[in-house]
Amino acid sequence: MIDFRSDTVTKPTKPMLTAMMSAKVGDDVFGEDGTVKTLEEKTAALFGMEAGLFCPSGTMSNQIAIKCFTQPLDEVIADQTAHVYRYEGGGIMFNSAASVRLLNGDRGIITAEMIEKEINPVGNVHHPHTSLVVLENTVNRGGGSCYFLRDIAPIYNLCKLKNLKLHLDGARIFNALAYTKDAAKDYGKYFDGISVCLSKGLGAPVGSVLLGSNETIKYARRIRKVLGGGMRQAGFLAAAGIFALDHHVERLAIDHRHAKLLEECLLSLPFVKQVLPVQTNIVIFELNELKDAEHLLIELKGNGILCGTFGVQTIRFVTHLDVDQEQIMQTIAVLKSL
Amino acid sequence: MIDFRSDTVTKPTKPMLTAMMSAKVGDDVFGEDGTVKTLEEKTAALFGMEAGLFCPSGTMSNQIAIKCFTQPLDEVIADQTAHVYRYEGGGIMFNSAASVRLLNGDRGIITAEMIEKEINPVGNVHHPHTSLVVLENTVNRGGGSCYFLRDIAPIYNLCKLKNLKLHLDGARIFNALAYTKDAAKDYGKYFDGISVCLSKGLGAPVGSVLLGSNETIKYARRIRKVLGGGMRQAGFLAAAGIFALDHHVERLAIDHRHAKLLEECLLSLPFVKQVLPVQTNIVIFELNELKDAEHLLIELKGNGILCGTFGVQTIRFVTHLDVDQEQIMQTIAVLKSL
Amino acid sequence: MIDFRSDTVTKPTKPMLTAMMSAKVGDDVFGEDGTVKTLEEKTAALFGMEAGLFCPSGTMSNQIAIKCFTQPLDEVIADQTAHVYRYEGGGIMFNSAASVRLLNGDRGIITAEMIEKEINPVGNVHHPHTSLVVLENTVNRGGGSCYFLRDIAPIYNLCKLKNLKLHLDGARIFNALAYTKDAAKDYGKYFDGISVCLSKGLGAPVGSVLLGSNETIKYARRIRKVLGGGMRQAGFLAAAGIFALDHHVERLAIDHRHAKLLEECLLSLPFVKQVLPVQTNIVIFELNELKDAEHLLIELKGNGILCGTFGVQTIRFVTHLDVDQEQIMQTIAVLKSL
Amino acid sequence: MIDFRSDTVTKPTKPMLTAMMSAKVGDDVFGEDGTVKTLEEKTAALFGMEAGLFCPSGTMSNQIAIKCFTQPLDEVIADQTAHVYRYEGGGIMFNSAASVRLLNGDRGIITAEMIEKEINPVGNVHHPHTSLVVLENTVNRGGGSCYFLRDIAPIYNLCKLKNLKLHLDGARIFNALAYTKDAAKDYGKYFDGISVCLSKGLGAPVGSVLLGSNETIKYARRIRKVLGGGMRQAGFLAAAGIFALDHHVERLAIDHRHAKLLEECLLSLPFVKQVLPVQTNIVIFELNELKDAEHLLIELKGNGILCGTFGVQTIRFVTHLDVDQEQIMQTIAVLKSL
Repeated sequence: MIDFRSDTVTKPTKPMLTAMMSAKVGDDVFGEDGTVKTLEEKTAALFGMEAGLFCPSGTMSNQIAIKCFTQPLDEVIADQTAHVYRYEGGGIMFNSAASVRLLNGDRGIITAEMIEKEINPVGNVHHPHTSLVVLENTVNRGGGSCYFLRDIAPIYNLCKLKNLKLHLDGARIFNALAYTKDAAKDYGKYFDGISVCLSKGLGAPVGSVLLGSNETIKYARRIRKVLGGGMRQAGFLAAAGIFALDHHVERLAIDHRHAKLLEECLLSLPFVKQVLPVQTNIVIFELNELKDAEHLLIELKGNGILCGTFGVQTIRFVTHLDVDQEQIMQTIAVLKSL
Repeated sequence: MIDFRSDTVTKPTKPMLTAMMSAKVGDDVFGEDGTVKTLEEKTAALFGMEAGLFCPSGTMSNQIAIKCFTQPLDEVIADQTAHVYRYEGGGIMFNSAASVRLLNGDRGIITAEMIEKEINPVGNVHHPHTSLVVLENTVNRGGGSCYFLRDIAPIYNLCKLKNLKLHLDGARIFNALAYTKDAAKDYGKYFDGISVCLSKGLGAPVGSVLLGSNETIKYARRIRKVLGGGMRQAGFLAAAGIFALDHHVERLAIDHRHAKLLEECLLSLPFVKQVLPVQTNIVIFELNELKDAEHLLIELKGNGILCGTFGVQTIRFVTHLDVDQEQIMQTIAVLKSL
Repeated sequence: MIDFRSDTVTKPTKPMLTAMMSAKVGDDVFGEDGTVKTLEEKTAALFGMEAGLFCPSGTMSNQIAIKCFTQPLDEVIADQTAHVYRYEGGGIMFNSAASVRLLNGDRGIITAEMIEKEINPVGNVHHPHTSLVVLENTVNRGGGSCYFLRDIAPIYNLCKLKNLKLHLDGARIFNALAYTKDAAKDYGKYFDGISVCLSKGLGAPVGSVLLGSNETIKYARRIRKVLGGGMRQAGFLAAAGIFALDHHVERLAIDHRHAKLLEECLLSLPFVKQVLPVQTNIVIFELNELKDAEHLLIELKGNGILCGTFGVQTIRFVTHLDVDQEQIMQTIAVLKSL
Repeated sequence: MIDFRSDTVTKPTKPMLTAMMSAKVGDDVFGEDGTVKTLEEKTAALFGMEAGLFCPSGTMSNQIAIKCFTQPLDEVIADQTAHVYRYEGGGIMFNSAASVRLLNGDRGIITAEMIEKEINPVGNVHHPHTSLVVLENTVNRGGGSCYFLRDIAPIYNLCKLKNLKLHLDGARIFNALAYTKDAAKDYGKYFDGISVCLSKGLGAPVGSVLLGSNETIKYARRIRKVLGGGMRQAGFLAAAGIFALDHHVERLAIDHRHAKLLEECLLSLPFVKQVLPVQTNIVIFELNELKDAEHLLIELKGNGILCGTFGVQTIRFVTHLDVDQEQIMQTIAVLKSL
């Protein structure tokens, strides 16, 4: 099967596996796993931040960040499509007892102007206390849409001015960097927290690194413990992450080219109404009345192709490490034949 | 001062005060305050529900209802203007650890179609479990807009079908009934919980009654305890509520006429851009570029008139028991003179 | 019936009722109820603290204080009999998501030494962060046992040293003051928060005042809102509290004398195994094998006397404003006749 | 260094590493990791339960179980030494908003009689609703003390009768089985949930399996998601767990013999006041006035031996897979030489 359902389905390559199995490990709850420490430091350095914390999932690194940057009775501002709000099981409320204020961004991209309007007046007991803004880069539900650092700068300035924290859900931050050509290192100047996912486009089997100041990460470690995310000899997983950072970042451009090829094909199909302009590795398209999503899914599956839906008429393809150019061509051929 | 800021500012009339003073009281935490019981039973009977619980505020009766009808990891569907979401301090998340899904209703009025689209698929761990719909009647932020029971019936049917609970924030339910001519008694057929506020249009000093099944109210009593809402000799307050139910319901039509008079005047003013068509006792209007809300507030205050703002160009007047026709006329004269 | 079940059952006297009904009121959610403000300021001044907040119950004022002084992942140290832990419905965990560390005090009286042993090491993620100590004075489950200020001083010193907050559950603080002869005003030097209950020995129908610094009370107001404790024209209740502070404090000595009379009688009874030495208005005694608590309750009820039990063999009498000396004598006669 | 600090410090053996490396993996969030499924099913079958859920830590499997079996406003009964209460960061309150009732067991072993006394009366709003009992077998703080199934049966019966759930924190359940000779399969009859830790005595690097009914595990999966415990290609870790179940259970008897040897030695030392009689792989001993724990720790470290303390005079040794007999003998020689 050619699996476009998500970039989370990738399996370690042979060399990654070798890196994993030769990892030096220790008890990370005691702070003694050198490989985990190396991954945390390496990722922090890459993004120009002080410290990192390895977590078993992107959901956990996001949820910990939100808990670090809010208290109960606080409010988080995010786009209504945000993964932290839509796909983390209601975690903002469950883990942080914080409220959300949702914006209507353009493909999930929100602006300082939009945010400013929704900051609650300080000291009015009727309203939660606005304390955090969360951006997602790229935006999954936006079809892999990207923030440039020049979009982020005014949001950062607003947050400084209004005393808000700014967190980045960087589930696909390397995809964004590949598109925008922004430098990872500059991100550290703008954000209080960054979640960097290793198990999506980067191809590691498990894990995410939460980045922040030394103080934030110290507190984050406490929250990770209480959520049950403290793992013992986690170095095996961390080694895969280190390998991915070293070897799988450059190649994301390939996935983006593949996504572009799919977009081009889709635009030519009679049953496709609209394709969200492809920027990175996600292709979201809407069907017209000639087909519905569920049937197309079944047709594709019959031809050895897996993908996902967002609602009745919308389909998502995600390109990644485990889909090569030949498979893209094969997919295009199938799409044209339907 | 003529105070249009809210219908919560009313003070007890002499006869209401006499009713309070002669109330029989007992320790309501022990279930021994007969006046509280009478109020609870009377309100339940009025709305065709099994039982009631007297609470110190409408916020508490709403928050208890939401806790009764959700568990952590659940999701509440409501309009984005809903008081339970916007004006209760982030209570849904704080007290219930539940998520919210917000709809974009027409003046806060949502429909079964809108709701149905936002019910999360059952069994998908990425999404909270949709378990509750909250309606507000009248809608405060909608300018006192009303649901008719014929609007509520299809929502009720959807909730039955999808196994959702349905709660009514009835902060101004009597205003809605005065407009729609629906029967209070019929409301009990549609809702699992109803908050009936006594200290807004009805003019009682303190309190709200939460209505529900016997089982719901038994559990609600436990939640009220843990929130600190169990009061001892609360009968003094309950007596005012009973008096209000007996004597202040019919007269809401007067407040509505007053609101209509204000609307008529506002529509004729050069600096008014738009008035939300008045249905009940709330008048929300938008200013054009000739005036901004803050300045108008100051001008009015200088003329002995108090009101409130929603944002930079929007003003709210609420009519109530403590504003009589003469004061309305005086206000109209002032408005015309500006 | 002579009702010894609790000092919460008292009903307002005529003059208190007159004070209530002549109260000047306003909308306290808008900060416009002068009587509530007077009560808050008067109580704060009495205890040498900056500010006060009127709440509908002692449970709410305690729960708000605990929320003010903890964050989720924190731990509260208290005696295992503490009202905040045992009788507030699990509120510490529900409202504050804080952990508890319970001590085994002498009649609920704990010492700095006991507390010091149970403060968690800072920075160890396995343990919650100890942030608050709660004392109760008098201790209800301890049979009205009292802390002297000289007992509190070393606890205060420890809290300063270890950066812990110190809260007093003063449900019966005036009873403690009557016994210890300590000055109310000196309490403000030792505590970050004090709950002063008006509806127990003081005889007001409803309410409790939370005292703290200006900053604490500002935040407490936010929490009160989200718990639903913001009441509108609450001045009627506050007026009763003011009256109680002015007229019902001195007379607590009478209740204490009555409790002593009961103790004396009980010590002479063949079916009484032990009486906790009476200090204030609570008399807790244990029965021997000649009688069990449930049967004694029924016998007493048959003779017009109500009281409560703590477990199978233990009974509690509470003396208060609504039990006079004649009724005490009558009760003693009944007890001797059984 | 010879490391007795905890049985969590073990590193995978070569054959375990080989098993990990050759694991078939998939995306476990999509339910497609066959190795994870095999581990879950194998562990469930072993304990006679319906289903299992692989979690990144024992803390997470315990915390999920507690959330499955409680709702906010509920109360959990456990021994005061319980890991779930003492060492999981305050998680019961943070994750479940549940209260705790703590018992004073014998080396952490509690009885049905003790539990029964502490079940709150149903329907009294002052008390949380007792809904769960948690046992730990072996008890860490009890020095590896064990429950036999004959001790558990009456607790199970009480729980049935009183409608309580019963959860086992089986961090070291295989050590308990090795001592008691009870059959793992019989455990499923008594418990609603069991946490089986793989990364302690069993020597796997990461993970714990939560066992329960199909319904419980379905809900547990939702909670795991929101806590951030859903891992992608987790099969590498699960493979280590399978290997451990197959090869590291029988050998626990060796660790127990080693612990006995240490106990024997300690009993002969002049500076040892008391040793908790050794049953499994934990040796807890108290020092007399000749030495304090901190100094002994330093002396041992100077001799290449690591261990931990519980308070000022108490030390813990844990034997495990990575300490062989020679190292035990070496430790004994060092201890005798001090």
